[in-house]
Amino acid sequence: MMAARPAAALMGGEIREQPDVWDRLLASGQFAAVAAEIQRRGPRMVLLAARGTSDHAALYAKYLIEIRLQLPAGLISPSTMTAYGAKPDLRDVLVIAVSQSGGSPDLVRTVQVARAQGALTVAVTNNGASELASAAELHLDVLAGPELSVAATKTYTAQQLALYLLVDALRGGSAAARGLPDLGRQLLDSDDRVVEQAQRYRFAQRLVTTARGYSYPTAREAALKLMETSYLSAQAFSGADLMHGPLAIVDSTVPVLAVVADGPGGAAMQPVLERVTAAGADVFTVGTAAAVTASTGGIVLPGGVPEELSPILEILPFQLMAMHLALARGENPDEPRGLQKVTETL
Amino acid sequence: MMAARPAAALMGGEIREQPDVWDRLLASGQFAAVAAEIQRRGPRMVLLAARGTSDHAALYAKYLIEIRLQLPAGLISPSTMTAYGAKPDLRDVLVIAVSQSGGSPDLVRTVQVARAQGALTVAVTNNGASELASAAELHLDVLAGPELSVAATKTYTAQQLALYLLVDALRGGSAAARGLPDLGRQLLDSDDRVVEQAQRYRFAQRLVTTARGYSYPTAREAALKLMETSYLSAQAFSGADLMHGPLAIVDSTVPVLAVVADGPGGAAMQPVLERVTAAGADVFTVGTAAAVTASTGGIVLPGGVPEELSPILEILPFQLMAMHLALARGENPDEPRGLQKVTETL
Repeated sequence: MMAARPAAALMGGEIREQPDVWDRLLASGQFAAVAAEIQRRGPRMVLLAARGTSDHAALYAKYLIEIRLQLPAGLISPSTMTAYGAKPDLRDVLVIAVSQSGGSPDLVRTVQVARAQGALTVAVTNNGASELASAAELHLDVLAGPELSVAATKTYTAQQLALYLLVDALRGGSAAARGLPDLGRQLLDSDDRVVEQAQRYRFAQRLVTTARGYSYPTAREAALKLMETSYLSAQAFSGADLMHGPLAIVDSTVPVLAVVADGPGGAAMQPVLERVTAAGADVFTVGTAAAVTASTGGIVLPGGVPEELSPILEILPFQLMAMHLALARGENPDEPRGLQKVTETL
Repeated sequence: MMAARPAAALMGGEIREQPDVWDRLLASGQFAAVAAEIQRRGPRMVLLAARGTSDHAALYAKYLIEIRLQLPAGLISPSTMTAYGAKPDLRDVLVIAVSQSGGSPDLVRTVQVARAQGALTVAVTNNGASELASAAELHLDVLAGPELSVAATKTYTAQQLALYLLVDALRGGSAAARGLPDLGRQLLDSDDRVVEQAQRYRFAQRLVTTARGYSYPTAREAALKLMETSYLSAQAFSGADLMHGPLAIVDSTVPVLAVVADGPGGAAMQPVLERVTAAGADVFTVGTAAAVTASTGGIVLPGGVPEELSPILEILPFQLMAMHLALARGENPDEPRGLQKVTETL
């Protein structure tokens, strides 16, 4: 008879594996060729298609593309091409589909329509043998190895880093990301402090996550992980959108989890943190030492990381938080209720 | 001494005013000229910029533009042009900024940058004298009259209808929307039934709203109204995204508010409703008679409305629900805590 697997063995193992996945991506030669083909075709805009966790990696790429490549970028609503049969004119458009499994029928269909409508299509998946990888003209493998935890962790940061390295290759290439794996290992050593902090939110039923700019996808992904493993209502808002209405729900019973990286996005969070603190919220911050000191608690990010790379590190403490909070609540994050690993939507 | 204003007098009055605002928009001649200038310039793609409630009207327009105009469309993250100073190449791009007040500095700045970068810019506001209206090359007035309630209602459906009429004019014009004001009056007569249903959610602390396609912005806006007036955690998900993870939070204590219009988007909600019902959720549906019958409760939409116009009607029962739920909880929706009418974000 097999021994029962300890709770969170899968999720915990895959969280810790991330720096090794990044090492593999940094050593991979696949980005130059894909970048060269994109450059040859010279797209005027970029559309991204994804669902769930992969959608947050796509949103991170949207910021990179708009800010670093100076190209307009948008997120596709797949239903326009699937349920409604739209056939937009996509000449001069680069369409990037991001999916862990490469198996979601709506994304496969979206890429097929986009390619037929003239777009250059790139699939970013963890499965080169998937339908999505075949449907797209070009493919990037995120090299994360089999992901068994239902709550995706290592494929998320692998997608982020693959998209970063693609954008970096389109700008001629740099060594900026080389230090990430070691910084990731260093940050994962904060595990004990996260266990402690997770106890604080043991009885929370609702919380808000917030950030701006490059870090906004981190707030989105942190909220999703907390929902998937701990079943609390976790709502993500860009710091600006939070001020436009949802601020009303924040009070002393609704903790705020903030991301405050070193750079313009983090700086723009200052008035947001002041308002939620004035509303009586408990604030947990992942970010600069100054921002963490001004909060109820938090985890300080390693210094000297360019803001556009920071999101790949920022999510680690939130992944640990989601896992430890689930365990503190008597749940097993490896077996979230109502979910399967691959979700097929039409 | 002035008599105290009854609770919800502003919000209730503005909700009831909506069909009259629509009459004014339908009689307005402003759409043909703006459409003609857009046609003359022949944009290859459309980007929309907005915050809060206006962002949901922009999202509705994104579906209209992709499906009815067959043009790729995306939502701008204003921070890329404000906090990060991105200057993307926007030749052949139509940028539409949507704002009730026309006063938010980040949108004004976004339009200024977009115009300088070669975009054709259109502002859709309720204030022709606003900075945003001046910053853009073209302006559409949503003709809603002064909006005094902090929770925006009439400007939302006015923005939707103005954007619909612009898209309709770009397609040559039709009379499809003529019947909307009377259907809106008919739907507002369901007020008593909504009062009854609101009692059911008196003690809910968390809920989920969901829809697909054209109706997804309705789910987003319904959630925002409930947060602004009743302070509960209301999370909106596209039906497809709900299946990719957040489904885990749904159980018998988390009611689901669904929109199921007559058309492909509503049809795609069928598996979603089955899953949330199986998870034990109480389901309140605004939509077709069949969908409402299959739910715990709901409000039936008038029949015979094309799906792309349905969102302008769908939101009315949710606006009433937000108001009556706030009143049932002893709150005054005219004075939501922590909010001002015009939110300025940078």
